[in-house]
Amino acid sequence: MTLCPLPFARFPTMKSGLNFLIAARRCEIDELDQLARTSDLVGVIGRLVHALQRERGMSNVFLASRGGRLADQRDPQIAECLSLEQEVRAGFDQLETEARHRAGPGNGARLFSRIAWVLPGLDALPALRRRIGALELKPAQATAAFAKLIAGLLSVVFEAADGATDPEISRLLVAMFNFMQGKEFAGQERAFGAAALAEGRSDEAQRLQWLHLIESQERCFQVFTDFSDAALLVLWRESQSDATLAELERMRRMGATSAPATPAGIAGTQLSQAWFDCCTRRIDAMKTVEDRLAADLRALCGHKTAQARSELQKYQEVLGTLAPQADNSAMFFDDADAQAAAPAQFGRHLERSVLDMVQEQSHRLQAMGDELETVRASLNERKIVERAKGLLMAHRRLSEEEAHKMLRQTAMNQNRRLVDVAESVLAMADYLPLDTQPPH
Amino acid sequence: MTLCPLPFARFPTMKSGLNFLIAARRCEIDELDQLARTSDLVGVIGRLVHALQRERGMSNVFLASRGGRLADQRDPQIAECLSLEQEVRAGFDQLETEARHRAGPGNGARLFSRIAWVLPGLDALPALRRRIGALELKPAQATAAFAKLIAGLLSVVFEAADGATDPEISRLLVAMFNFMQGKEFAGQERAFGAAALAEGRSDEAQRLQWLHLIESQERCFQVFTDFSDAALLVLWRESQSDATLAELERMRRMGATSAPATPAGIAGTQLSQAWFDCCTRRIDAMKTVEDRLAADLRALCGHKTAQARSELQKYQEVLGTLAPQADNSAMFFDDADAQAAAPAQFGRHLERSVLDMVQEQSHRLQAMGDELETVRASLNERKIVERAKGLLMAHRRLSEEEAHKMLRQTAMNQNRRLVDVAESVLAMADYLPLDTQPPH
Repeated sequence: MTLCPLPFARFPTMKSGLNFLIAARRCEIDELDQLARTSDLVGVIGRLVHALQRERGMSNVFLASRGGRLADQRDPQIAECLSLEQEVRAGFDQLETEARHRAGPGNGARLFSRIAWVLPGLDALPALRRRIGALELKPAQATAAFAKLIAGLLSVVFEAADGATDPEISRLLVAMFNFMQGKEFAGQERAFGAAALAEGRSDEAQRLQWLHLIESQERCFQVFTDFSDAALLVLWRESQSDATLAELERMRRMGATSAPATPAGIAGTQLSQAWFDCCTRRIDAMKTVEDRLAADLRALCGHKTAQARSELQKYQEVLGTLAPQADNSAMFFDDADAQAAAPAQFGRHLERSVLDMVQEQSHRLQAMGDELETVRASLNERKIVERAKGLLMAHRRLSEEEAHKMLRQTAMNQNRRLVDVAESVLAMADYLPLDTQPPH
Repeated sequence: MTLCPLPFARFPTMKSGLNFLIAARRCEIDELDQLARTSDLVGVIGRLVHALQRERGMSNVFLASRGGRLADQRDPQIAECLSLEQEVRAGFDQLETEARHRAGPGNGARLFSRIAWVLPGLDALPALRRRIGALELKPAQATAAFAKLIAGLLSVVFEAADGATDPEISRLLVAMFNFMQGKEFAGQERAFGAAALAEGRSDEAQRLQWLHLIESQERCFQVFTDFSDAALLVLWRESQSDATLAELERMRRMGATSAPATPAGIAGTQLSQAWFDCCTRRIDAMKTVEDRLAADLRALCGHKTAQARSELQKYQEVLGTLAPQADNSAMFFDDADAQAAAPAQFGRHLERSVLDMVQEQSHRLQAMGDELETVRASLNERKIVERAKGLLMAHRRLSEEEAHKMLRQTAMNQNRRLVDVAESVLAMADYLPLDTQPPH
């Protein structure tokens, strides 16, 4: 019975388990710093979207009145948009600069790809405004252009929510995205209803499209409430006064049922204007919730980062107390009964505590991963719609907008939810004898 | 009708959509570089695990023969392990160094947490070897210790597969992980069968545990074949000679049915030795598949990186041809009919091509995300088991190994798959009036 003669060399220059415990924490801190920046950006995007929604509303009134109304309010609104646009662009640039020199966001490629899509839209705004100023567009055309740009900005927020690696922050980002998206549907409903009421006629297709805008926003606000805390919910309820909601519902009913009974012309214009003002009060009030969401997000990021930094410091202190050559490993095989009879020795308590810290961290990360998966599942609905659109684009050679219209039209005709139609399309995919590869 | 007097200022110092198209590509390249390093590390881990599996086998024979057999082969095997361990540690350190100065892997925290767990195991190897050399351990104890260390190394490979952001590379990593895990089950079966055949007795519990080891490895190899190309499958089939497989199955049957009929003692020892040699031939032959997987992984990472770099160059060339102030935005609202009548102008073709590139990239990233989700779904089985273990640990105050034993025991008793038992545990979770938070 001989002891093995080989040198059982340690690797003294190599890093220990505790070093990697620290490295794991550093990664978390990097991700939290990144999330804080992204969250700030989401806040600014929220303010820009709100300003653009207001500009869209004013532009519609301006165009519908052939330049007679809101011309004076439009200019300061545009000035506000320009200033917020500059903030958003600066935020984009900062993300890009940091991704060059340091870690980019986890889903950097997708986030930057969304930004790449929205920037030409911002670039095209001056031309759009010029054409609106020159009354060269119909209200519906202006609405569609602003809606496209806002959709692009919202898709940046969506990626930010989808890429968040902390479940609590992800939860708030999901609430924020859904709130912004719901508010945007409310803005589209305002424009749609204003036009419909002004025209004074109502047909089945129009009624269905209006209904879809209402349902879409309610679904978004439902997700928002599911993911919000009590304080936010109180603020949300307070922001929607009973009087405004009652008036809104009354006019929604009139729009849905009016038809020949309501004459177009003066009455229609007045009704349309009352509708527009009521919607505007409601949408502007939503802004307080959005601002609170952005503030909560900032506070949460700050809190999480501080917490992670203090944990990191704790680890580093432990690392400092370990002798460079300390054997913090003797207990690894304990559970395996391999060292059942190992003598108690100096530093054993510390070893145990390092192994405990490793296990604790590992379980915490796993629990976070599970929680994150649950939160992200709420984003799946939109992903399913996106996927179905992609399928239709590839299989039927449609543009993105044509594919979306096709899905929406089917949903309206069949009185089904958009996501259900999208799921049917995806389920059908295998039966289509077509190439599912994206074009290259 | 007046044009709006506000300056429709451009933001000339700000970055364009194309800049972010490039930034998105850079993120992808960073991720691919990171994946290449992780894949290299996975290759080295594969070789270390193989060497440790051999050392475990030799240690078992050495211990079972009271030091009489394989003493001379054990030392060079340990030397090989030490050399590979140094490579693995260097790979760990490199990841950590890079994460400090540049982007860490996307799932850095989880990957580093796994490494933090496995390093104390490597640190504890010299003590384990000393005790084996001094014949202080039973074969089963040595087997359990090596199995625990190898499980830790495999969990690093698992995180690498789970964190991969490219679906093709992820596919190969999933194949690699499952192959390594299957091979490890084969190694455990070798040790288990050798002990069982040497003892010459067979009871129901033993029979079931053996069956579970066989089923577990077959499930792993099934996932491996699902995710492998034709060339790999040919290699896999060739590595498992019919003669070896026939012998293996014959001895498996003998082990399962032997019982009192087969006497312990000389016959048992010979049978055990024949079993051990047969398993060793089979496991050693698997090494060729593992090496090929590692080589394929390296080649794929190289190919993907080169491809992404050449795409990046293409974008940069386009960026170079655009005048600094070029309006590459005019077409953004085209689909929205907002600029239906915009005149054709110089550079329009280029603008279109930039918008096309953005859309193409966005669809490619989306398709990659979908594909990645599909590949990762195959890793869910293991995650479900991990989650159930975590639940049991929290709810019943068990250690990780006790939780695993409990699940495995239930699976054996009820003749169900481990993952099915884990799913039952998770489904039951809501009925347990206990805290699901991880310990803090």
